[in-house]
Amino acid sequence: MSISLGPDDSVAVLAHEKFPDGAKTAVGVLRYANYDVTAVLDRERAGERVTDHVPDVPDAPIVESMTDALETSTPDALLIGISPIGGGFDESWRADVRAAIEAGCDVIAGLHYFLEDDEEFAGLAADHGVDLIDVRRPPDDLTVSQGRARDADADVVLTVGTDCSTGKMTTTLELVAAARERGIDAGFVPTGQTGIMIAGWGIPVDRVIADFAAGAVEQMILDAADDHDVLFVEGQGTIVHPAYSGVTCSLLHGAMPDSLVLTHSAGRDAIHGYEDFAIPPVEAYVDLYEDLATPVAPTEIAAGALDTRAIDDDDAARAAVDDYADAVGGPATDPVRFDADAILDALL
Amino acid sequence: MSISLGPDDSVAVLAHEKFPDGAKTAVGVLRYANYDVTAVLDRERAGERVTDHVPDVPDAPIVESMTDALETSTPDALLIGISPIGGGFDESWRADVRAAIEAGCDVIAGLHYFLEDDEEFAGLAADHGVDLIDVRRPPDDLTVSQGRARDADADVVLTVGTDCSTGKMTTTLELVAAARERGIDAGFVPTGQTGIMIAGWGIPVDRVIADFAAGAVEQMILDAADDHDVLFVEGQGTIVHPAYSGVTCSLLHGAMPDSLVLTHSAGRDAIHGYEDFAIPPVEAYVDLYEDLATPVAPTEIAAGALDTRAIDDDDAARAAVDDYADAVGGPATDPVRFDADAILDALL
Repeated sequence: MSISLGPDDSVAVLAHEKFPDGAKTAVGVLRYANYDVTAVLDRERAGERVTDHVPDVPDAPIVESMTDALETSTPDALLIGISPIGGGFDESWRADVRAAIEAGCDVIAGLHYFLEDDEEFAGLAADHGVDLIDVRRPPDDLTVSQGRARDADADVVLTVGTDCSTGKMTTTLELVAAARERGIDAGFVPTGQTGIMIAGWGIPVDRVIADFAAGAVEQMILDAADDHDVLFVEGQGTIVHPAYSGVTCSLLHGAMPDSLVLTHSAGRDAIHGYEDFAIPPVEAYVDLYEDLATPVAPTEIAAGALDTRAIDDDDAARAAVDDYADAVGGPATDPVRFDADAILDALL
Repeated sequence: MSISLGPDDSVAVLAHEKFPDGAKTAVGVLRYANYDVTAVLDRERAGERVTDHVPDVPDAPIVESMTDALETSTPDALLIGISPIGGGFDESWRADVRAAIEAGCDVIAGLHYFLEDDEEFAGLAADHGVDLIDVRRPPDDLTVSQGRARDADADVVLTVGTDCSTGKMTTTLELVAAARERGIDAGFVPTGQTGIMIAGWGIPVDRVIADFAAGAVEQMILDAADDHDVLFVEGQGTIVHPAYSGVTCSLLHGAMPDSLVLTHSAGRDAIHGYEDFAIPPVEAYVDLYEDLATPVAPTEIAAGALDTRAIDDDDAARAAVDDYADAVGGPATDPVRFDADAILDALL
């Protein structure tokens, strides 16, 4: 999967009724992508500005529709920046997608529902010579892992977590940025839809045939290792997830990382969406990840990243980070609230 | 996936140039399926008999081609009993498949190459009113696990292994047979192509989208638990496999088994096909499987099954089993060479 968007390109981002808190992809793109956002589509916030809600990102207008967005400028693409439960296409977005195609914009989506398989969109896209890019559709030439990622000519760091949505992608991107600021040739290896949209390449490992999941990770590592000295690999799920642990396991064994960074959300005590499943002590995760990696490619938890958004007070957040560092047995920080230096120091 | 073959039905089994040692599926069907095998197709052994090579199974002629097989009887189906590396369709089999369809036989295959997608076969099958059954094509209504297998109204036993090809399917089927002999209402839950062909239902977990792998296992457990008191679930791969560990992890967390049976091949010291990866001590597997299961659904290795085929002498095999039992920390046996009673006693 490859999206040709660079610093000279721009997108409009669809986030109807969800911006910013329910629009993880939209916010990720605003924060980390190297292309411009000309407008955010959210019919409930039309007339407001992006920085009314998300400070510290480049500002853009929030508009009612793609038609409105096109009045001021024509971006290179419309990017679907939200994903409903189930990953379906919401028919209330159809007019926006249609308007984008008719204006010559590509459309980029990370839905389970593939735009390419939608008859109307496919026909319109052909008529207008634009691309429909479904980043969640894996390439069809994947195969089983050869067990070769440990031969990659780069240091490999993988983020792992105590749960889903603990900041694995964010931590990974903050580490890439911090490493680059130090002059290190760092590469980001995206494994999920938002990461792929931000980076413009990658394979959605959770959508790959189970037998090929580790192989997909291996292929990305070997490819990216040719271009960079250090690779930061976006992790997925958690090794104790009732539904997604297989993906996490494939990432651990497929990537064969030199180091792991363990991410956690302060205050969370049950698996997100699976409230009957308690989150075990942090120390248990350290042992589990390391013990599971050892027979394939030994590695260790080098540092911890704690998402402290649930804690208002900075001092309390620092205290939570200190406790987390003790549990992890290494340095820890909140790379968004503070910075990623403590983690980077432990890795390099 | 459901195949309607029962005790009154029969198949011819294609195993060209591979019978018996390279034809795991053919031999599995001969040994465990409840339908008859009218002939085995192996052009290198035409004129010989099945029991010349595999004692203790119902005998059948080995023939040159499907045309020859049809001379004595017309089975309900032709079953492809071999799977080349890569899972492709060997064009030298085309005449046999064609002859089968033209004679009104269904064709059952577990290849990565789907017969249904082959234009000639699809057209012929429609003309002759027969079914092309690709058991490796997962159903398209799968979804993520709900974490509910532990609520199943049946005891669940999962076979796990130190490697691929350590006898997980065989051990599972021997346990089902031994339990039924004791009058226990035991069900077999097939998760791979051969198991599915033998049982006539099941989902090939390795071919499922990674996010849905645990969900596929959960669905099978919940369905089968309605019909049986004890479920024996066919395991896949090993938790330390460089390529396939994600599938194993999804089975462990998706099935939420009450007990595990650890299978191993005597004398093997490296992962099959990945010779750079040493097989860790058996004790390490016990800890890994149990520790990984605990946060999701605690379980334990209740017994061990050792494949002693590499050991000629029965006394030496018994000594190897004793050593293995010590390492597993529970009873062990070779359920094929001896019987499955020691394992069953530990489980029930």
